[in-house]
Amino acid sequence: VLLDALDNVLTPKVLAGKHVVITAGPTREHADPARFISNPSTGKMGFALASAARHMGAEVTVVSGPVSLVTPPGVFRIDVTTAQEMFDATMRAAPSADMVICTAAVADFRPATSGDRKLSKAELGQTWELERNPDILATLGERYGVDQDEGPIIVGFAAQTHDVLELGREKMLKKKAHALVANKVGGPDSSFGADESSAYVIKPDSHRELPRAPKAELARQILEIISLHADGR
Amino acid sequence: VLLDALDNVLTPKVLAGKHVVITAGPTREHADPARFISNPSTGKMGFALASAARHMGAEVTVVSGPVSLVTPPGVFRIDVTTAQEMFDATMRAAPSADMVICTAAVADFRPATSGDRKLSKAELGQTWELERNPDILATLGERYGVDQDEGPIIVGFAAQTHDVLELGREKMLKKKAHALVANKVGGPDSSFGADESSAYVIKPDSHRELPRAPKAELARQILEIISLHADGR
Repeated sequence: VLLDALDNVLTPKVLAGKHVVITAGPTREHADPARFISNPSTGKMGFALASAARHMGAEVTVVSGPVSLVTPPGVFRIDVTTAQEMFDATMRAAPSADMVICTAAVADFRPATSGDRKLSKAELGQTWELERNPDILATLGERYGVDQDEGPIIVGFAAQTHDVLELGREKMLKKKAHALVANKVGGPDSSFGADESSAYVIKPDSHRELPRAPKAELARQILEIISLHADGR
Repeated sequence: VLLDALDNVLTPKVLAGKHVVITAGPTREHADPARFISNPSTGKMGFALASAARHMGAEVTVVSGPVSLVTPPGVFRIDVTTAQEMFDATMRAAPSADMVICTAAVADFRPATSGDRKLSKAELGQTWELERNPDILATLGERYGVDQDEGPIIVGFAAQTHDVLELGREKMLKKKAHALVANKVGGPDSSFGADESSAYVIKPDSHRELPRAPKAELARQILEIISLHADGR
Protein backbone atom coordinates (compact mmCIF):
# COMPACT_ATOMS: atom_id res chain seq x y z
CA VAL A 1 0.00 0.00 0.00
CA LEU A 2 2.86 2.36 0.81
CA LEU A 3 4.61 1.52 -2.47
CA ASP A 4 1.29 1.98 -4.25
CA ALA A 5 0.88 5.43 -2.67
CA LEU A 6 4.46 6.40 -3.53
CA ASP A 7 4.00 5.20 -7.10
CA ASN A 8 0.83 7.25 -7.24
CA VAL A 9 2.63 10.42 -6.12
CA LEU A 10 5.51 9.91 -8.56
CA THR A 11 3.48 9.12 -11.68
CA PRO A 12 2.81 12.10 -13.99
CA LYS A 13 -0.91 12.77 -14.22
CA VAL A 14 -1.06 12.65 -18.01
CA LEU A 15 -4.59 11.22 -17.94
CA ALA A 16 -6.02 13.77 -15.46
CA GLY A 17 -9.59 14.64 -16.36
CA LYS A 18 -9.92 11.66 -18.71
CA HIS A 19 -12.40 8.80 -18.37
CA VAL A 20 -10.90 5.45 -19.31
CA VAL A 21 -13.15 2.39 -19.76
CA ILE A 22 -11.43 -1.01 -19.70
CA THR A 23 -12.94 -4.43 -20.36
CA ALA A 24 -11.17 -7.26 -18.54
CA GLY A 25 -11.17 -10.98 -17.90
CA PRO A 26 -12.99 -13.81 -19.65
CA THR A 27 -16.69 -14.14 -20.37
CA ARG A 28 -18.67 -17.29 -19.69
CA GLU A 29 -21.28 -18.60 -22.10
CA HIS A 30 -23.50 -21.09 -20.32
CA ALA A 31 -25.21 -24.09 -21.90
CA ASP A 32 -26.74 -24.81 -18.49
CA PRO A 33 -25.83 -23.80 -14.90
CA ALA A 34 -23.06 -26.43 -14.77
CA ARG A 35 -21.49 -26.04 -18.23
CA PHE A 36 -20.04 -23.09 -20.09
CA ILE A 37 -17.59 -22.06 -22.79
CA SER A 38 -14.83 -19.77 -21.56
CA ASN A 39 -11.11 -19.08 -21.87
CA PRO A 40 -8.05 -18.86 -19.57
CA SER A 41 -7.99 -15.05 -19.19
CA THR A 42 -7.40 -14.05 -15.57
CA GLY A 43 -8.02 -10.30 -16.07
CA LYS A 44 -4.53 -9.38 -14.80
CA MET A 45 -3.64 -7.22 -17.83
CA GLY A 46 -6.94 -5.32 -17.70
CA PHE A 47 -6.68 -4.71 -13.97
CA ALA A 48 -3.03 -3.64 -14.36
CA LEU A 49 -4.13 -1.09 -16.98
CA ALA A 50 -6.94 0.08 -14.68
CA SER A 51 -4.49 0.61 -11.84
CA ALA A 52 -1.96 2.37 -14.08
CA ALA A 53 -4.60 4.63 -15.65
CA ARG A 54 -5.82 5.59 -12.16
CA HIS A 55 -2.24 6.44 -11.13
CA MET A 56 -1.98 8.61 -14.23
CA GLY A 57 -4.99 10.62 -13.05
CA ALA A 58 -7.87 9.07 -15.01
CA GLU A 59 -11.36 8.22 -13.86
CA VAL A 60 -11.42 4.49 -14.55
CA THR A 61 -14.31 2.09 -15.17
CA VAL A 62 -13.55 -1.62 -15.44
CA VAL A 63 -16.15 -3.88 -17.01
CA SER A 64 -15.00 -7.25 -15.68
CA GLY A 65 -15.91 -10.85 -16.40
CA PRO A 66 -15.54 -13.48 -13.64
CA VAL A 67 -12.04 -13.04 -12.16
CA SER A 68 -10.41 -13.56 -8.73
CA LEU A 69 -8.82 -10.10 -8.54
CA VAL A 70 -9.14 -7.23 -6.10
CA THR A 71 -10.44 -3.98 -7.61
CA PRO A 72 -7.62 -1.37 -7.67
CA PRO A 73 -8.26 1.57 -5.29
CA GLY A 74 -10.45 4.30 -6.80
CA VAL A 75 -11.52 2.21 -9.80
CA PHE A 76 -15.23 1.82 -10.58
CA ARG A 77 -16.04 -1.83 -11.36
CA ILE A 78 -18.97 -3.38 -13.21
CA ASP A 79 -19.18 -7.19 -12.97
CA VAL A 80 -20.62 -9.17 -15.88
CA THR A 81 -20.67 -12.84 -16.89
CA THR A 82 -21.59 -13.15 -20.57
CA ALA A 83 -20.35 -11.41 -23.73
CA GLN A 84 -23.82 -9.88 -24.20
CA GLU A 85 -23.70 -8.38 -20.69
CA MET A 86 -20.18 -7.06 -21.31
CA PHE A 87 -21.33 -5.58 -24.63
CA ASP A 88 -24.29 -3.82 -22.96
CA ALA A 89 -22.24 -2.43 -20.04
CA THR A 90 -19.43 -1.24 -22.33
CA MET A 91 -21.78 0.50 -24.77
CA ARG A 92 -23.47 2.29 -21.87
CA ALA A 93 -20.10 3.51 -20.55
CA ALA A 94 -18.45 4.40 -23.89
CA PRO A 95 -20.26 7.68 -24.72
CA SER A 96 -18.74 9.39 -21.66
CA ALA A 97 -15.27 7.85 -22.19
CA ASP A 98 -12.13 9.42 -23.65
CA MET A 99 -10.60 6.00 -24.21
CA VAL A 100 -11.98 2.46 -24.30
CA ILE A 101 -9.46 -0.37 -23.97
CA CYS A 102 -10.77 -3.83 -24.77
CA THR A 103 -8.52 -6.33 -22.96
CA ALA A 104 -11.28 -8.83 -22.17
CA ALA A 105 -11.11 -12.24 -23.80
CA VAL A 106 -14.69 -12.26 -25.01
CA ALA A 107 -16.11 -15.59 -26.14
CA ASP A 108 -16.90 -15.37 -29.87
CA PHE A 109 -19.67 -17.92 -29.62
CA ARG A 110 -22.32 -18.98 -27.12
CA PRO A 111 -24.41 -22.17 -27.01
CA ALA A 112 -27.53 -21.54 -29.10
CA THR A 113 -29.73 -22.90 -26.32
CA SER A 114 -29.21 -22.46 -22.61
CA GLY A 115 -31.34 -22.85 -19.52
CA ASP A 116 -31.52 -22.69 -15.74
CA ARG A 117 -31.94 -26.44 -15.48
CA LYS A 118 -28.97 -28.79 -15.61
CA LEU A 119 -29.21 -30.91 -18.74
CA SER A 120 -28.63 -34.66 -18.77
CA LYS A 121 -25.83 -35.98 -20.94
CA ALA A 122 -28.43 -37.21 -23.44
CA GLU A 123 -30.16 -33.82 -23.61
CA LEU A 124 -26.81 -32.13 -24.06
CA GLY A 125 -26.11 -34.19 -27.15
CA GLN A 126 -22.88 -34.83 -28.94
CA THR A 127 -22.69 -31.43 -30.61
CA TRP A 128 -23.23 -27.91 -29.37
CA GLU A 129 -24.95 -25.54 -31.77
CA LEU A 130 -23.28 -22.18 -31.35
CA GLU A 131 -24.32 -18.65 -32.20
CA ARG A 132 -22.13 -15.58 -32.59
CA ASN A 133 -21.81 -13.11 -29.75
CA PRO A 134 -21.89 -9.35 -30.46
CA ASP A 135 -18.41 -8.00 -31.32
CA ILE A 136 -17.62 -5.31 -28.75
CA LEU A 137 -14.46 -3.97 -30.39
CA ALA A 138 -15.95 -3.93 -33.91
CA THR A 139 -19.04 -2.09 -32.67
CA LEU A 140 -16.89 0.49 -30.82
CA GLY A 141 -14.77 0.85 -33.98
CA GLU A 142 -17.85 1.37 -36.11
CA ARG A 143 -19.24 4.05 -33.78
CA TYR A 144 -16.05 5.84 -32.62
CA GLY A 145 -13.12 4.39 -34.60
CA VAL A 146 -10.65 5.64 -37.21
CA ASP A 147 -13.39 6.73 -39.64
CA GLN A 148 -15.07 8.94 -37.02
CA ASP A 149 -14.11 12.44 -35.86
CA GLU A 150 -15.38 12.29 -32.30
CA GLY A 151 -15.72 9.98 -29.36
CA PRO A 152 -13.29 7.87 -27.35
CA ILE A 153 -10.00 6.48 -28.62
CA ILE A 154 -10.60 2.78 -29.25
CA VAL A 155 -7.85 0.33 -28.29
CA GLY A 156 -8.03 -3.40 -28.97
CA PHE A 157 -6.06 -6.33 -27.63
CA ALA A 158 -5.22 -9.47 -29.57
CA ALA A 159 -3.94 -12.72 -28.09
CA GLN A 160 -2.35 -14.82 -30.82
CA THR A 161 -0.49 -18.11 -30.83
CA HIS A 162 1.41 -17.23 -34.05
CA ASP A 163 2.05 -14.33 -36.48
CA VAL A 164 1.41 -11.99 -33.56
CA LEU A 165 2.31 -8.70 -35.27
CA GLU A 166 0.73 -9.45 -38.64
CA LEU A 167 -2.56 -10.80 -37.26
CA GLY A 168 -2.63 -7.95 -34.74
CA ARG A 169 -2.34 -5.31 -37.47
CA GLU A 170 -4.99 -7.09 -39.52
CA LYS A 171 -7.36 -7.11 -36.56
CA MET A 172 -6.77 -3.42 -35.82
CA LEU A 173 -7.64 -2.42 -39.41
CA LYS A 174 -10.66 -4.71 -39.60
CA LYS A 175 -12.09 -3.42 -36.31
CA LYS A 176 -11.29 0.23 -37.15
CA ALA A 177 -9.48 0.64 -33.82
CA HIS A 178 -7.03 3.52 -33.22
CA ALA A 179 -4.47 1.18 -31.72
CA LEU A 180 -4.06 -2.46 -30.79
CA VAL A 181 -1.91 -4.31 -28.30
CA ALA A 182 -0.87 -7.76 -29.50
CA ASN A 183 0.67 -10.48 -27.39
CA LYS A 184 1.43 -14.15 -27.53
CA VAL A 185 -0.53 -16.94 -25.85
CA GLY A 186 0.26 -20.64 -25.73
CA GLY A 187 3.75 -22.03 -25.31
CA PRO A 188 6.34 -21.00 -22.75
CA ASP A 189 5.84 -17.23 -23.33
CA SER A 190 2.06 -17.36 -22.93
CA SER A 191 0.64 -14.21 -21.34
CA PHE A 192 -2.58 -15.92 -20.13
CA GLY A 193 -2.48 -15.88 -16.34
CA ALA A 194 1.17 -14.83 -16.23
CA ASP A 195 2.44 -11.91 -14.15
CA GLU A 196 4.76 -10.82 -16.94
CA SER A 197 4.16 -10.31 -20.61
CA SER A 198 5.68 -8.80 -23.72
CA ALA A 199 3.60 -6.98 -26.33
CA TYR A 200 3.46 -5.00 -29.54
CA VAL A 201 1.62 -1.68 -29.48
CA ILE A 202 0.38 -1.28 -33.05
CA LYS A 203 -0.90 1.96 -34.58
CA PRO A 204 -1.98 2.55 -38.18
CA ASP A 205 1.41 4.00 -39.17
CA SER A 206 3.84 2.30 -36.80
CA HIS A 207 4.36 -0.23 -34.06
CA ARG A 208 6.47 -0.55 -30.95
CA GLU A 209 7.72 -3.72 -29.34
CA LEU A 210 7.63 -3.72 -25.54
CA PRO A 211 9.99 -6.31 -24.06
CA ARG A 212 8.91 -8.77 -21.40
CA ALA A 213 8.07 -6.90 -18.18
CA PRO A 214 5.75 -7.17 -15.17
CA LYS A 215 2.19 -6.41 -16.29
CA ALA A 216 2.07 -3.25 -14.10
CA GLU A 217 5.09 -1.82 -15.93
CA LEU A 218 3.80 -2.95 -19.31
CA ALA A 219 0.44 -1.28 -18.55
CA ARG A 220 2.16 2.05 -17.83
CA GLN A 221 4.14 1.90 -21.07
CA ILE A 222 1.07 0.99 -23.12
CA LEU A 223 -0.93 3.89 -21.66
CA GLU A 224 1.91 6.35 -22.31
CA ILE A 225 2.17 5.33 -25.96
CA ILE A 226 -1.58 5.42 -26.49
CA SER A 227 -1.98 8.74 -24.65
CA LEU A 228 0.51 10.37 -27.02
CA HIS A 229 -1.66 9.12 -29.83
CA ALA A 230 -4.77 10.47 -28.12
CA ASP A 231 -3.28 13.95 -27.85
CA GLY A 232 -2.66 13.97 -31.58
CA ARG A 233 -6.25 13.23 -32.44
CA VAL B 1 -3.00 -20.55 11.46
CA LEU B 2 -3.39 -20.63 15.25
CA LEU B 3 -7.07 -21.56 14.95
CA ASP B 4 -6.12 -24.17 12.39
CA ALA B 5 -3.56 -25.64 14.79
CA LEU B 6 -6.07 -25.60 17.66
CA ASP B 7 -8.71 -27.24 15.48
CA ASN B 8 -6.13 -29.83 14.53
CA VAL B 9 -5.38 -30.66 18.17
CA LEU B 10 -9.07 -30.88 19.12
CA THR B 11 -10.27 -33.03 16.20
CA PRO B 12 -10.48 -36.78 16.93
CA LYS B 13 -8.06 -38.67 14.68
CA VAL B 14 -10.68 -41.10 13.33
CA LEU B 15 -8.91 -41.28 9.95
CA ALA B 16 -5.42 -41.94 11.35
CA GLY B 17 -3.50 -44.35 9.12
CA LYS B 18 -5.98 -43.93 6.24
CA HIS B 19 -5.16 -42.59 2.77
CA VAL B 20 -7.92 -40.36 1.38
CA VAL B 21 -7.86 -39.32 -2.29
CA ILE B 22 -10.05 -36.35 -3.23
CA THR B 23 -10.73 -34.94 -6.69
CA ALA B 24 -11.53 -31.21 -6.69
CA GLY B 25 -12.35 -28.23 -8.86
CA PRO B 26 -13.39 -28.05 -12.51
CA THR B 27 -11.70 -29.54 -15.53
CA ARG B 28 -11.06 -27.61 -18.73
CA GLU B 29 -11.56 -29.14 -22.16
CA HIS B 30 -9.78 -27.03 -24.75
CA ALA B 31 -10.84 -26.58 -28.36
CA ASP B 32 -7.73 -24.41 -28.83
CA PRO B 33 -5.45 -22.51 -26.42
CA ALA B 34 -7.99 -19.68 -26.11
CA ARG B 35 -11.25 -21.59 -25.84
CA PHE B 36 -12.45 -24.33 -23.52
CA ILE B 37 -15.53 -25.92 -22.00
CA SER B 38 -15.61 -25.78 -18.21
CA ASN B 39 -17.91 -25.18 -15.25
CA PRO B 40 -18.15 -22.83 -12.25
CA SER B 41 -16.63 -25.18 -9.65
CA THR B 42 -14.11 -23.37 -7.45
CA GLY B 43 -12.80 -26.47 -5.65
CA LYS B 44 -13.78 -25.11 -2.22
CA MET B 45 -15.72 -28.23 -1.16
CA GLY B 46 -12.91 -30.58 -2.22
CA PHE B 47 -10.26 -28.53 -0.47
CA ALA B 48 -12.45 -28.26 2.65
CA LEU B 49 -12.73 -32.05 2.68
CA ALA B 50 -8.95 -32.36 2.20
CA SER B 51 -8.32 -30.07 5.14
CA ALA B 52 -10.88 -31.83 7.34
CA ALA B 53 -9.55 -35.30 6.43
CA ARG B 54 -6.03 -34.16 7.29
CA HIS B 55 -7.24 -32.85 10.67
CA MET B 56 -8.85 -36.23 11.26
CA GLY B 57 -5.44 -37.87 10.80
CA ALA B 58 -5.55 -39.07 7.19
CA GLU B 59 -2.84 -38.94 4.54
CA VAL B 60 -4.56 -36.84 1.90
CA THR B 61 -4.00 -36.58 -1.86
CA VAL B 62 -5.94 -33.93 -3.77
CA VAL B 63 -6.19 -34.26 -7.55
CA SER B 64 -7.13 -30.70 -8.48
CA GLY B 65 -8.30 -28.99 -11.64
CA PRO B 66 -7.47 -25.29 -12.19
CA VAL B 67 -8.47 -23.46 -8.99
CA SER B 68 -7.27 -20.36 -7.10
CA LEU B 69 -6.96 -22.06 -3.72
CA VAL B 70 -4.07 -22.59 -1.35
CA THR B 71 -3.19 -26.23 -0.64
CA PRO B 72 -4.11 -27.11 2.98
CA PRO B 73 -1.03 -27.82 5.15
CA GLY B 74 0.21 -31.41 4.90
CA VAL B 75 -1.93 -32.26 1.87
CA PHE B 76 -0.30 -33.75 -1.23
CA ARG B 77 -1.59 -32.02 -4.37
CA ILE B 78 -1.57 -33.15 -8.01
CA ASP B 79 -2.58 -30.44 -10.51
CA VAL B 80 -4.39 -31.42 -13.70
CA THR B 81 -6.32 -29.56 -16.41
CA THR B 82 -8.45 -32.02 -18.40
CA ALA B 83 -10.84 -34.81 -17.42
CA GLN B 84 -8.49 -37.34 -19.02
CA GLU B 85 -5.58 -36.09 -16.88
CA MET B 86 -7.77 -36.20 -13.76
CA PHE B 87 -8.87 -39.73 -14.64
CA ASP B 88 -5.26 -40.90 -15.08
CA ALA B 89 -4.02 -39.28 -11.83
CA THR B 90 -6.97 -40.60 -9.82
CA MET B 91 -6.62 -44.16 -11.14
CA ARG B 92 -2.92 -44.11 -10.26
CA ALA B 93 -3.69 -42.96 -6.69
CA ALA B 94 -6.76 -45.15 -6.03
CA PRO B 95 -5.09 -48.57 -5.46
CA SER B 96 -3.33 -47.26 -2.33
CA ALA B 97 -6.38 -45.35 -1.05
CA ASP B 98 -8.84 -46.29 1.70
CA MET B 99 -11.36 -43.77 0.43
CA VAL B 100 -11.75 -41.87 -2.85
CA ILE B 101 -14.06 -38.84 -2.78
CA CYS B 102 -14.97 -37.43 -6.18
CA THR B 103 -15.97 -33.79 -5.63
CA ALA B 104 -14.53 -32.48 -8.91
CA ALA B 105 -16.95 -31.12 -11.49
CA VAL B 106 -15.56 -33.11 -14.39
CA ALA B 107 -16.61 -32.02 -17.87
CA ASP B 108 -18.67 -34.81 -19.46
CA PHE B 109 -17.61 -33.84 -22.95
CA ARG B 110 -14.56 -32.43 -24.69
CA PRO B 111 -14.27 -30.88 -28.17
CA ALA B 112 -13.55 -33.71 -30.61
CA THR B 113 -10.70 -31.75 -32.15
CA SER B 114 -8.27 -29.49 -30.35
CA GLY B 115 -4.90 -27.99 -31.13
CA ASP B 116 -2.09 -25.75 -29.97
CA ARG B 117 -2.92 -23.13 -32.58
CA LYS B 118 -5.67 -20.58 -32.02
CA LEU B 119 -8.44 -21.20 -34.53
CA SER B 120 -10.09 -18.43 -36.54
CA LYS B 121 -13.82 -17.94 -36.10
CA ALA B 122 -14.35 -19.57 -39.50
CA GLU B 123 -12.23 -22.60 -38.60
CA LEU B 124 -14.06 -22.93 -35.32
CA GLY B 125 -17.38 -23.26 -37.12
CA GLN B 126 -20.89 -22.86 -35.82
CA THR B 127 -21.00 -26.21 -34.04
CA TRP B 128 -18.63 -28.03 -31.77
CA GLU B 129 -18.41 -31.77 -32.20
CA LEU B 130 -18.01 -33.26 -28.75
CA GLU B 131 -16.78 -36.58 -27.50
CA ARG B 132 -17.36 -38.22 -24.13
CA ASN B 133 -14.74 -37.99 -21.42
CA PRO B 134 -13.92 -41.04 -19.30
CA ASP B 135 -16.22 -41.33 -16.27
CA ILE B 136 -14.00 -41.27 -13.17
CA LEU B 137 -16.68 -42.16 -10.61
CA ALA B 138 -18.20 -44.95 -12.76
CA THR B 139 -14.76 -46.47 -13.34
CA LEU B 140 -13.94 -46.36 -9.62
CA GLY B 141 -17.38 -47.87 -8.89
CA GLU B 142 -16.76 -50.65 -11.39
CA ARG B 143 -13.33 -51.47 -9.90
CA TYR B 144 -13.91 -50.89 -6.17
CA GLY B 145 -17.65 -50.14 -5.66
CA VAL B 146 -20.59 -51.84 -3.97
CA ASP B 147 -20.21 -55.08 -5.95
CA GLN B 148 -16.56 -55.52 -4.91
CA ASP B 149 -15.18 -56.86 -1.64
CA GLU B 150 -11.92 -54.93 -1.51
CA GLY B 151 -10.43 -51.55 -2.29
CA PRO B 152 -11.25 -48.01 -1.26
CA ILE B 153 -14.67 -46.73 -0.24
CA ILE B 154 -15.99 -44.77 -3.24
CA VAL B 155 -17.87 -41.54 -2.58
CA GLY B 156 -19.48 -39.45 -5.32
CA PHE B 157 -20.78 -35.90 -5.38
CA ALA B 158 -23.74 -34.72 -7.41
CA ALA B 159 -24.61 -31.10 -8.11
CA GLN B 160 -28.23 -30.83 -9.20
CA THR B 161 -30.52 -27.94 -10.02
CA HIS B 162 -33.66 -29.96 -9.15
CA ASP B 163 -34.79 -33.27 -7.59
CA VAL B 164 -31.53 -33.23 -5.62
CA LEU B 165 -32.19 -36.29 -3.41
CA GLU B 166 -33.82 -38.46 -6.09
CA LEU B 167 -31.23 -37.78 -8.81
CA GLY B 168 -28.45 -38.15 -6.24
CA ARG B 169 -29.68 -41.60 -5.20
CA GLU B 170 -30.07 -42.60 -8.85
CA LYS B 171 -26.49 -41.49 -9.59
CA MET B 172 -25.10 -43.38 -6.58
CA LEU B 173 -26.75 -46.64 -7.69
CA LYS B 174 -25.76 -46.22 -11.32
CA LYS B 175 -22.12 -45.50 -10.46
CA LYS B 176 -21.98 -48.30 -7.83
CA ALA B 177 -20.62 -45.82 -5.26
CA HIS B 178 -20.76 -46.61 -1.52
CA ALA B 179 -22.10 -43.15 -0.75
CA LEU B 180 -22.95 -39.91 -2.49
CA VAL B 181 -23.16 -36.30 -1.38
CA ALA B 182 -25.82 -34.34 -3.25
CA ASN B 183 -26.23 -30.60 -3.24
CA LYS B 184 -28.07 -27.91 -5.12
CA VAL B 185 -26.61 -25.58 -7.74
CA GLY B 186 -28.25 -22.68 -9.53
CA GLY B 187 -30.62 -20.26 -7.87
CA PRO B 188 -30.10 -18.41 -4.57
CA ASP B 189 -28.94 -21.56 -2.70
CA SER B 190 -26.33 -22.50 -5.29
CA SER B 191 -23.27 -24.12 -3.77
CA PHE B 192 -20.95 -23.30 -6.72
CA GLY B 193 -18.33 -20.88 -5.44
CA ALA B 194 -20.19 -20.29 -2.17
CA ASP B 195 -18.54 -20.55 1.25
CA GLU B 196 -21.59 -22.29 2.68
CA SER B 197 -23.61 -25.19 1.43
CA SER B 198 -26.22 -27.70 2.48
CA ALA B 199 -26.14 -31.33 1.38
CA TYR B 200 -27.63 -34.78 1.55
CA VAL B 201 -25.32 -37.66 2.40
CA ILE B 202 -26.89 -40.65 0.67
CA LYS B 203 -26.08 -44.30 1.35
CA PRO B 204 -27.74 -47.38 -0.15
CA ASP B 205 -30.07 -47.85 2.83
CA SER B 206 -30.48 -44.31 4.20
CA HIS B 207 -29.75 -40.66 3.80
CA ARG B 208 -28.99 -37.72 6.07
CA GLU B 209 -29.72 -34.07 5.40
CA LEU B 210 -27.01 -31.70 6.56
CA PRO B 211 -28.32 -28.17 7.02
CA ARG B 212 -26.60 -25.12 5.49
CA ALA B 213 -23.18 -24.65 7.12
CA PRO B 214 -19.72 -23.34 6.26
CA LYS B 215 -18.02 -25.80 3.92
CA ALA B 216 -15.33 -26.59 6.55
CA GLU B 217 -18.01 -27.71 9.02
CA LEU B 218 -19.97 -29.54 6.33
CA ALA B 219 -16.77 -31.35 5.28
CA ARG B 220 -16.19 -32.59 8.84
CA GLN B 221 -19.77 -33.88 9.12
CA ILE B 222 -19.60 -35.61 5.73
CA LEU B 223 -16.34 -37.37 6.65
CA GLU B 224 -17.73 -38.50 10.00
CA ILE B 225 -20.80 -40.04 8.40
CA ILE B 226 -18.78 -41.73 5.66
CA SER B 227 -16.12 -42.98 8.09
CA LEU B 228 -18.79 -44.75 10.12
CA HIS B 229 -19.81 -46.47 6.93
CA ALA B 230 -16.21 -47.37 6.14
CA ASP B 231 -15.79 -49.10 9.51
CA GLY B 232 -18.79 -51.26 8.75
CA ARG B 233 -17.40 -52.55 5.50
